[in-house]
Amino acid sequence: MALDPVDLTSRLIACPSITPHEAGTLTLMTEWLEPMGFECHHLVSGERPDGPVENLIAIRKGAGNGPHLAFAGHVDVVPPGEGWDGDPFVPRIEDGQLIGRGATDMKGALGAFVAALDGWQQDKGTLSLLITGDEEGPAVHGTRAIVDWLEERSIGLDYCLIGEPSSQERLGDTVKNGRRGSVNVWLTLEGHQGHVAYPQLADNPLPKMARLVAALDAMELDEGTDMFQPSNLEFTAIGGGDGTTNVIPGKASAQFNIRFNDLQKGEDLVRRIEEMAEEIAPGTKVLAKISGEAFLTPEGKLTETLADAIEQEVGIRPRLSTGGGTSDGRFLHKLCPVAEFGLPNATMHKVGERAAVADIEKLSMIYRRCLEIFFA
Amino acid sequence: MALDPVDLTSRLIACPSITPHEAGTLTLMTEWLEPMGFECHHLVSGERPDGPVENLIAIRKGAGNGPHLAFAGHVDVVPPGEGWDGDPFVPRIEDGQLIGRGATDMKGALGAFVAALDGWQQDKGTLSLLITGDEEGPAVHGTRAIVDWLEERSIGLDYCLIGEPSSQERLGDTVKNGRRGSVNVWLTLEGHQGHVAYPQLADNPLPKMARLVAALDAMELDEGTDMFQPSNLEFTAIGGGDGTTNVIPGKASAQFNIRFNDLQKGEDLVRRIEEMAEEIAPGTKVLAKISGEAFLTPEGKLTETLADAIEQEVGIRPRLSTGGGTSDGRFLHKLCPVAEFGLPNATMHKVGERAAVADIEKLSMIYRRCLEIFFA
Ligand SMILES: [Zn+2]
Ligand SMILES: [Zn+2]
Repeated sequence: MALDPVDLTSRLIACPSITPHEAGTLTLMTEWLEPMGFECHHLVSGERPDGPVENLIAIRKGAGNGPHLAFAGHVDVVPPGEGWDGDPFVPRIEDGQLIGRGATDMKGALGAFVAALDGWQQDKGTLSLLITGDEEGPAVHGTRAIVDWLEERSIGLDYCLIGEPSSQERLGDTVKNGRRGSVNVWLTLEGHQGHVAYPQLADNPLPKMARLVAALDAMELDEGTDMFQPSNLEFTAIGGGDGTTNVIPGKASAQFNIRFNDLQKGEDLVRRIEEMAEEIAPGTKVLAKISGEAFLTPEGKLTETLADAIEQEVGIRPRLSTGGGTSDGRFLHKLCPVAEFGLPNATMHKVGERAAVADIEKLSMIYRRCLEIFFA
Repeated sequence: MALDPVDLTSRLIACPSITPHEAGTLTLMTEWLEPMGFECHHLVSGERPDGPVENLIAIRKGAGNGPHLAFAGHVDVVPPGEGWDGDPFVPRIEDGQLIGRGATDMKGALGAFVAALDGWQQDKGTLSLLITGDEEGPAVHGTRAIVDWLEERSIGLDYCLIGEPSSQERLGDTVKNGRRGSVNVWLTLEGHQGHVAYPQLADNPLPKMARLVAALDAMELDEGTDMFQPSNLEFTAIGGGDGTTNVIPGKASAQFNIRFNDLQKGEDLVRRIEEMAEEIAPGTKVLAKISGEAFLTPEGKLTETLADAIEQEVGIRPRLSTGGGTSDGRFLHKLCPVAEFGLPNATMHKVGERAAVADIEKLSMIYRRCLEIFFA
């Protein structure tokens, strides 16, 4: 291979692409992909406050009638935070580790995939790269816009591999073949403010909200499935009153998040919550925002290809997992089966984010092997 | 009477004695009382942040061995707030109402009492005025310091009349012969912060706090007595989380107030709360501050004297009540039976505070009649 995956990754890290800024990363990607025969579309989408976002769709059509495989990823990174030794956007190698913001999430996977393409020709099917500039932010005008773009042009995908850092302890131990869904809910309850000495003239919303919080927390959603852990509800805030000791406040609020498996639908959960709120604390306003439904990619060509490629390169067979947070898989699974495979994720989003040079090189070889098996 | 109670009240209102500033009021009181034979002690008490507070103790000893009656009150007022027609510290009379901050709470009572003393001599017992500059603020160095001062000098009181605005609909309808106790409690519970997608790595304190709030709210303290309404617990705040939707917060808090009758002791209530917290949300820190115990002055010489004086002057017999907030009676009842009687309280602490000129004059006559009956 002429292109070195560690070098490509380093050049991406050197662009301070704090979400939603692409900071030159998409120009680099274009410069690398166009010479390989990819048709590159820059898709600028959205307006303030969640946009505009720059995205890149690179497509190389094969001559044959083979499947369309997409590689999806993001160039944006979370803010570096305080406490780095050195500049987080000046990549450096220390003790065999490439250090810099985005090394593992997920510029390493981008460098590895582009390097894997170098010198590899196939014309049995179509290959595309779906690269967004906003996966870490609101993600309203990122992969969602790419999906719209594809659908408008009736460009179908058959399989999608996402380069998110799926590995846990070591490279290759985990492939994600699904993700839980996520819904955020905000509860507000108006009462009637008053003085603590005259409660009969007030209507205290705090105990009602507390009872509702306790009831929602006690709700058992399901027991999980073979592939998913049980759905889970977590309160993230509760509030009411400004600290004054003699005033019954007029308003109470709470918010929570549910991570749910494929036994649940976001809409049904919201309906259950609304019913419980009406029963326990009538008058509570329920505002819900479903970030994504749960999805599961059954074992099949995509997961098998990945597992075989991993086994051939690093000698272990990955386990399939649906754990962890959400990913852009929530948008892409509408189009085709989706799986995620990438670097170990121990340092993602952390100060001192890093990836082993050897892992980046191995990941590139796994991706290359993947392409070879997939289009064989 | 040479001294006019409305004029005296107006001169007190003209001093902007926003708590804890006496703003010249105590100088006026001294100028009025010394010529009547009162020995005046200025008691400056306390340090920052709750002090210093200026208080006035005026004592006139009788020749005889009769009882010691104290009249207690405060010269400080709550801040005027926005929205007054005219300056709240420039008293004016409109449609028979004296308007200004403190007119009813309680410069009207001070003016009425001083005017009642004018020309009245008795030598059967001792009369004193216990006037504080901080009843509306923290009240740490106000009446409490006066009580200490009296105890240090072994000056005993036999009865105490407080000039707080006790009347409801009309002057004379209500005498307060007790007050509920009050305790403020702050609850804090530490958990372990984490990401909503990985609840097994976190310890969410919010639902635990919600269960504790619900349980404390459901606790029945008592059913009240003939003279007291049931003790009551009201939450005044609950909090945890900063609004971030994907973070399980590390800390939850709540605060509440209990107004309790004489079936309860502050300490016992705090112990019950601590036990319940330990049972329902172990690890919860309970911080309690008892502002005052409940007290009740049984019907007797003081309440009878007041009732008779009121009936003779305004033709109605007052009902005895223990309702409403706390007062400095919580400190004074340790020394002797305490009762409160003063102007109608509809506008106390409000914008446009006022008292009827006729009521101030009648109140002065009731106080005078009181003295005559008491020392007869
Ligand atoms: Zn990522
Ligand atoms: Zn008062």
